[in-house]
Amino acid sequence: MSKLEGKVLVAQGGGPTHVINQSVVGVALEARKFTQVTAVYGAVHGVRGIIDEEFVDLTRETTHNLELVADTPSSGLLSTRDKPDVEYCARMFKVMQAHGIRYFFYVGGNDSSDTVRIVNDQAKAADYELRAIHIPKTIDNDLVENDHCPGYGSAARYVAQAFGGVNLDNRALKGVYIGVVMGRHAGFLTAASALARKYVDDGPHLVYLPERAFDTDRFLADVDRVFSKHGCCTIAVSEGIGDKGGNPVITKLMGEERDAHGNVQLSGTGALGDLLSDAVKKGLGLKRVRSDTFGYLQRSFLGCRSDRDAREAREVGEKAVQFAMWDNVDGSVVIRRPVLDYGVDYELVPLERVAGKTRHMPDEFINEEGNGVTQAFHAYCRPLLGSGLPEAHRIRAPRVPKLLGK
Amino acid sequence: MSKLEGKVLVAQGGGPTHVINQSVVGVALEARKFTQVTAVYGAVHGVRGIIDEEFVDLTRETTHNLELVADTPSSGLLSTRDKPDVEYCARMFKVMQAHGIRYFFYVGGNDSSDTVRIVNDQAKAADYELRAIHIPKTIDNDLVENDHCPGYGSAARYVAQAFGGVNLDNRALKGVYIGVVMGRHAGFLTAASALARKYVDDGPHLVYLPERAFDTDRFLADVDRVFSKHGCCTIAVSEGIGDKGGNPVITKLMGEERDAHGNVQLSGTGALGDLLSDAVKKGLGLKRVRSDTFGYLQRSFLGCRSDRDAREAREVGEKAVQFAMWDNVDGSVVIRRPVLDYGVDYELVPLERVAGKTRHMPDEFINEEGNGVTQAFHAYCRPLLGSGLPEAHRIRAPRVPKLLGK
Repeated sequence: MSKLEGKVLVAQGGGPTHVINQSVVGVALEARKFTQVTAVYGAVHGVRGIIDEEFVDLTRETTHNLELVADTPSSGLLSTRDKPDVEYCARMFKVMQAHGIRYFFYVGGNDSSDTVRIVNDQAKAADYELRAIHIPKTIDNDLVENDHCPGYGSAARYVAQAFGGVNLDNRALKGVYIGVVMGRHAGFLTAASALARKYVDDGPHLVYLPERAFDTDRFLADVDRVFSKHGCCTIAVSEGIGDKGGNPVITKLMGEERDAHGNVQLSGTGALGDLLSDAVKKGLGLKRVRSDTFGYLQRSFLGCRSDRDAREAREVGEKAVQFAMWDNVDGSVVIRRPVLDYGVDYELVPLERVAGKTRHMPDEFINEEGNGVTQAFHAYCRPLLGSGLPEAHRIRAPRVPKLLGK
Repeated sequence: MSKLEGKVLVAQGGGPTHVINQSVVGVALEARKFTQVTAVYGAVHGVRGIIDEEFVDLTRETTHNLELVADTPSSGLLSTRDKPDVEYCARMFKVMQAHGIRYFFYVGGNDSSDTVRIVNDQAKAADYELRAIHIPKTIDNDLVENDHCPGYGSAARYVAQAFGGVNLDNRALKGVYIGVVMGRHAGFLTAASALARKYVDDGPHLVYLPERAFDTDRFLADVDRVFSKHGCCTIAVSEGIGDKGGNPVITKLMGEERDAHGNVQLSGTGALGDLLSDAVKKGLGLKRVRSDTFGYLQRSFLGCRSDRDAREAREVGEKAVQFAMWDNVDGSVVIRRPVLDYGVDYELVPLERVAGKTRHMPDEFINEEGNGVTQAFHAYCRPLLGSGLPEAHRIRAPRVPKLLGK
């Protein structure tokens, strides 16, 4: 049990998810139970809010409103893309010291886990006693050590429901449809499109992931084959697809806008979808080719979330506090799945085992042709989407025999 | 009461909606009650299916499965963009005659209502006894004579939920966000984005509709003003916005792909959003500018629909059959709203009063500056979104006084 008396600080980093507020609320409600915790602060705009001394006092917030916020997507405490260096950390400790903050919980992806690692290392170097815990979240599902990440299930559900709809749309008015899905290095979110399939001829018929080199000629041959068979072709493409040399397809097109973590802008533009559409129009001579870039809709759409994802996001927040208080250690909370169908366990692992690393789709989840997913992926992903997934139904009425035509 | 004995034929035309299958099922279930109806056929791919003699027999479909299909978005009977001319109609009558079809119900927008008008005129000219009724549907909400159109409420709900999410997202990681919404000539769907607003500083802060000429300089001044005030700016733009001369902004960018109705392709490309993003980046020197084109997601997303919209879409199908059978007339079913808060009536009006005409947002729904909507629009639109609209909540915890900074 930690005897360290002081305040808890919770913050959110990186891109929002549908359920990230669950984790903050999990931290706040659990931390309020421990007598060594003198207050629970929330940093506004992540680590940037620490530098700027922008805190809200979550001990002066009602449980009811916290529960309402937990059910709201996106980062209720607001977020940042700032990545602290040594000097940045020094300023953070000065603020933390002034406010008596001794427990730091940071909810975020692999960039944020690296931030926690740096803060933790710097705290040790500065001899500032601090418990620092990284709480996982990312719609990309690309944190190592985790079976899956909070935020993924809900975004995956959005992608599955979206493809469930566009598959019907593209059957009704036949053409080629390309949906561009988030996922810089990992294809998990794009792969979730396959969960939309119900009937054997349902789309997406082709799924392209960043884990496999994208080749335009092979892509066109795939589309041609599917279109010849079904009279339409629905395609899911990850925004992060790259060529054999590992260069993102989209960088050939655009100026290279990079964020503080050195990441190129992939979302918030329709460029990749339009490029692929043009390739199909020109390469195959098909006329009705449409592309949508799912962009920010997939990570914050109000009213689409996985109940299982929401519960787990709450639990990782709760567990983070329990690890810090009962075990008095730093680390990163990870989700294991010891029960295949279906249950989870939470563990705390050293920060350096998660920080800054990227998990990719394992080979067994990707089909041999590199243009689809396997049954193993279906079994992995389906429980994460949660309960009550809407289903599409078809008219099964028999055909009427033709009287005139052949 | 119509004494005309024969088959009913129902078909769907134009773009799918979330609730168009409700109308088909309304026709099928109601028509099966009348003894002069010898069968209920569904045409596969709209009028194209009539030419091709592609019918399914809906009298050999279970009520249970019809109800499941009614709850499924997109066109269960599949659709077409074909627009019949005299010769096309002649071929249709030949097929109808061969199959003993005497009642024709066509669910569609203003292009489809014009199709029904042509078919009806040609039937009279050819002395082919046929009841032809147009059943309204369009996410654009642009049919004249109607208070609103089936399909609009659900698509509007999608747009409102989407902006509810991106508003939160764009607050968390501050920037300029541009969401491009469907609506070729009418701004109703784009305007629904405003229903996402709850707190006074919520986005969308700016809404641009095709009913007002788009001026890039005024647009940049608007964005600059909002961004200076809030540190972020969320914008809804209709895909159909045009300049003072009435030229769509997007046609300056793209080759002019046109469909059979002479419409330019607006959706299925991110070009307009990217153009506006570039204008903001260059014109205002802002870095984090993102755009999403909602594209096909907004009209068929599985699991997002208005229950009120679904009920009304069912009713217009039922009423169409009742008008044809009890009153023995042709026409277009229209929705009135005699009760402001809230109730509807259905009437049948002559086809030529609806066919091929486009309704626009009335002036009283658009603010004086032409960059937002009025309270009158809110009052008009809110009931159409249906019940159980998800809501966003904010942390209301008090700020902690700064100890170091100013």
